[in-house]
Amino acid sequence: MISAGFVHTVYFWLKEGTTEADKAEFEKGLAGLGEIDTVQTIFFGPPAQTPRDVVDNSYGYGLTLLFKNRADQDSYQVNPDHDKFIEAHSHLWERVQVYDYLVK
Amino acid sequence: MISAGFVHTVYFWLKEGTTEADKAEFEKGLAGLGEIDTVQTIFFGPPAQTPRDVVDNSYGYGLTLLFKNRADQDSYQVNPDHDKFIEAHSHLWERVQVYDYLVK
Repeated sequence: MISAGFVHTVYFWLKEGTTEADKAEFEKGLAGLGEIDTVQTIFFGPPAQTPRDVVDNSYGYGLTLLFKNRADQDSYQVNPDHDKFIEAHSHLWERVQVYDYLVK
Repeated sequence: MISAGFVHTVYFWLKEGTTEADKAEFEKGLAGLGEIDTVQTIFFGPPAQTPRDVVDNSYGYGLTLLFKNRADQDSYQVNPDHDKFIEAHSHLWERVQVYDYLVK
């Protein structure tokens, strides 16, 4: 078990025509976000294509970052390496959807 | 760091009129899901209300479950305790949205 106070989850819908090479670069970028100092744990990957009505399989990558608390997530949002990730990769996505929740 | 191969995330939109007592019961139910044997780690909680356009704050609870692999998540889905959770609490929600992804 790991303790975390704040879960930040992002779903990225990639543009049509995104190549396997683009995806490989994007994955490197995602992995780099895990190096930002307040990130406790990072997970990311493509939809598992579980076949249930309530499951959204339409996105390209899910990303889950665990933080100790809200302040650490706020700090991550303004970290220069987070900005660099967006600058380097935002041309690949057409939509992002974020869910932030506080762990009970 | 924890290793996981499969991230199962659920967002629950609760019905209007859900009381604080209902929520307390629901949280007990969510916590119980973490006892199911193939669950490595569980997190859940209400939206952090982070004020950004890309953040959805309209749901009642987010739930993140980490599994070793796809087979363990499949096993969780058919565990009787998972069914009991749904039977006991589904009257509280009006919508669930699930995202399952395979960790790269």
